Amino acid sequence: MHEFELIERLRPLLPRHPSLVQGAGDDCAVIDAGIPGFHLLFKTDAVVEGFHFDRETDPHRVGHKALARCLSDIAAMGGEPISALVTLALPAHFDAEYVARLYDGMGALASKHQVSIAGGETTTNPERLILSISMIGRVPAGRALLRSGARPGDALFVTGELGGSRAGKHLDFEPRLEQAQWLSKHFEIHAMIDLSDGLAGDVRHLLRESGVGAELLDRAIPVSLEARRTERQQGGKTALASALTDGEDFELLFCVPPGRAVALKDAWREAFPSIRLSCIGKITEARGLRICIRGELRAVLEHGYTHFAKP
Amino acid sequence: MHEFELIERLRPLLPRHPSLVQGAGDDCAVIDAGIPGFHLLFKTDAVVEGFHFDRETDPHRVGHKALARCLSDIAAMGGEPISALVTLALPAHFDAEYVARLYDGMGALASKHQVSIAGGETTTNPERLILSISMIGRVPAGRALLRSGARPGDALFVTGELGGSRAGKHLDFEPRLEQAQWLSKHFEIHAMIDLSDGLAGDVRHLLRESGVGAELLDRAIPVSLEARRTERQQGGKTALASALTDGEDFELLFCVPPGRAVALKDAWREAFPSIRLSCIGKITEARGLRICIRGELRAVLEHGYTHFAKP
Repeated sequence: MHEFELIERLRPLLPRHPSLVQGAGDDCAVIDAGIPGFHLLFKTDAVVEGFHFDRETDPHRVGHKALARCLSDIAAMGGEPISALVTLALPAHFDAEYVARLYDGMGALASKHQVSIAGGETTTNPERLILSISMIGRVPAGRALLRSGARPGDALFVTGELGGSRAGKHLDFEPRLEQAQWLSKHFEIHAMIDLSDGLAGDVRHLLRESGVGAELLDRAIPVSLEARRTERQQGGKTALASALTDGEDFELLFCVPPGRAVALKDAWREAFPSIRLSCIGKITEARGLRICIRGELRAVLEHGYTHFAKP
Repeated sequence: MHEFELIERLRPLLPRHPSLVQGAGDDCAVIDAGIPGFHLLFKTDAVVEGFHFDRETDPHRVGHKALARCLSDIAAMGGEPISALVTLALPAHFDAEYVARLYDGMGALASKHQVSIAGGETTTNPERLILSISMIGRVPAGRALLRSGARPGDALFVTGELGGSRAGKHLDFEPRLEQAQWLSKHFEIHAMIDLSDGLAGDVRHLLRESGVGAELLDRAIPVSLEARRTERQQGGKTALASALTDGEDFELLFCVPPGRAVALKDAWREAFPSIRLSCIGKITEARGLRICIRGELRAVLEHGYTHFAKP
């Protein structure tokens, strides 16, 4: 059974409570904890040795990545992070210097974003290291950017460039917190998600939660230099397919009303001149994901990176 | 390096923030998130196959245990739980029915305590299942029951019975949420901790955080029937040593001013007639942990269960 299928199947069975504004199925859970004017964001995310990093990876980068993934989810809700807990499962004969460097990587990024590391737990996993981060944040009440608000006609935007993240970006990316908060403040964002499984996979999450479809335009998709280099040097997967399915891009995908698309492009260029912003397609009433390749509309069959499909 | 040493070493390096009321070093982190009159509690706790449960253990009990451990930590702060996230790391070819039953175990306990399960994450750990729970709760501001408030002369109390938990209780225990909230409401509790590593280990955490010592009285320690049965049938470890070091009792250990000890015993008997409450000793100005065995005061050498010492 596929990871997403399992989660889908278990979702309706999870105990709810009136304080739960948004449960499983978005980048973070949203909880009304009684903070006047704010909702609490609650998220957990793990990186596993051999899957999200290797034994040889600099532990500073591993720590950075683990915390950055959670921050990216807070960003995708338009929120600001508050505090994190660190769960470290590691072999009995671990290297204390390795662990200290892991914490250094987390600490540097946490300090940058004024996030406290409030503690956590150390436990045993004999075969491989797992680093799981729990995070709380906050967002103005009623302003959380959900996956479920996309409307037919909306313009679909993506930040940065996609594909080839495994060459290094997945360890060093900067979570788009500032950009997401700016977007939420200045524009009517109907839906947002961060790209972790790959554009083709993540856009489907957004479409499913919103009950809509989408059409993408091939030449509008911002393919990374790394994805182009890989196609040129190794062949096989096209650069476009990399951008659609490689995963771990940690960019923002979001929808705005079509009438605001040009104003957004102009304001973005002023605010974030060094970060690319691309309008890659539009939301359609017809369900399903299609892509226009060299003028021809095709169904997208690629499902994006999934944890169980590709170890 | 020992788990606790590592945490001790890393603690001063963790990034702090003014909103962090109590960071690493207590049962939960305490955060001022802006809830009028309340502080937020934040906790994470993991159970690992082969350490905290076995492959053959009924997954319903595994789910119960994982959630109950976190609830026990919320209890030990005098708090009430709000919401949990579930991180499940499992082999690729997992059994969907197993996972559904795991969620059933968590769900039943969560519903009982009005805790929502707000989502979480499923990831891969090829060799063994790990189930990590993140939880938020709340406590009246300034009323969190910390480990650091014990004062010389305080009476040391423990709920329930200790030792032999591995025979079954560790999978089925009921977290002492109601009892801890009752204690916090009706008595001046100077310090509290939940017993997870064993009395001898956990009392030391409380003593260290409070900068005090303690004297225990051997015949006052509530040794479980299971610990007595094990001593009788298997010999080796005495029942008292089991009560001191077996771990996973998930009872409450706490300190009250000595003048209130009798009133507490009386009120407790009225409120919770089926749960034993024992005064097991007193807090001393002199550091260290001593136990009076058959009238003779000895230093306690047992360190309690630790994750790395005894897989």
